[in-house]
Amino acid sequence: MRILGIDPGIGRTGWGVIRHEKGNIHVGNYGCIETFQTSSLEKRLATLYTKIGDIITTEKPDSLAIEELFFNTNVSTALIVGQARGVILLAAAQANLSIGVYTPLQVKMAVSGYGRAGKGQVGQMIKTLLKLSEIPKPDDTADALAIAITHAFSYKMNKV
Amino acid sequence: MRILGIDPGIGRTGWGVIRHEKGNIHVGNYGCIETFQTSSLEKRLATLYTKIGDIITTEKPDSLAIEELFFNTNVSTALIVGQARGVILLAAAQANLSIGVYTPLQVKMAVSGYGRAGKGQVGQMIKTLLKLSEIPKPDDTADALAIAITHAFSYKMNKV
Repeated sequence: MRILGIDPGIGRTGWGVIRHEKGNIHVGNYGCIETFQTSSLEKRLATLYTKIGDIITTEKPDSLAIEELFFNTNVSTALIVGQARGVILLAAAQANLSIGVYTPLQVKMAVSGYGRAGKGQVGQMIKTLLKLSEIPKPDDTADALAIAITHAFSYKMNKV
Repeated sequence: MRILGIDPGIGRTGWGVIRHEKGNIHVGNYGCIETFQTSSLEKRLATLYTKIGDIITTEKPDSLAIEELFFNTNVSTALIVGQARGVILLAAAQANLSIGVYTPLQVKMAVSGYGRAGKGQVGQMIKTLLKLSEIPKPDDTADALAIAITHAFSYKMNKV
């Protein structure tokens, strides 16, 4: 089971791949897609869509994991993130990936053991869980790996 | 100049084509794309993207006109509409259409002569302006034609 975790945004979209095999998780490639304010919104969305498509082609995930729409933000952020999330879900649908959706609380619980992680600690947790030599940067990338791990744990629980 | 007006939504996306030639506007085809709640969000977005692409291929617009992101709505609506708007802008970018963005006030002024139209009157105004035998239904379709007309008027003004 290969899982692509995504933390969507118009300027930065974090991504990270987790392999879940025989009860263990292994980290694959990860990174951050950036688009620039000097481009029009539609060109930024097109760049994001193309790059997510390239990652799906290269990484061959079975599932895409993404955070639940969050309602405790402001409307202008919601509109911008919604547009980015739309083209990401489109790319996932076109590749026939199964999609896992998790709340921020579920993600926090999955990576910290029942929600003990404070703000800014997710990176450290990810480093430890995935046996990385350093904390993945930027935060968007660490968050994407956290969402992928959440899906791996959930899938495991669902299987039991 | 062929203009495709769009009123985006996840359940219903209104669309309508206006030709603007020699200072006059003429109505082309128009309709409403529907997606169903029985499908997953990602499948609905994929359907919307495919159908918008089909309309662009068939209608060959030069421009796509859409409303400005509106900030006076609630967050959950913004997230849903944002996702639909994202895949529509993506389809427009991939077809190299120029994109016109207008506020609800600009649209109201364009179709009613300086904002006299009350709620629910847009359909009647569209019927009159475009010499239609009946009001386009549903409202999403009438709103899409109104946005296309706004772009035609704006383009005309920009040319002068």
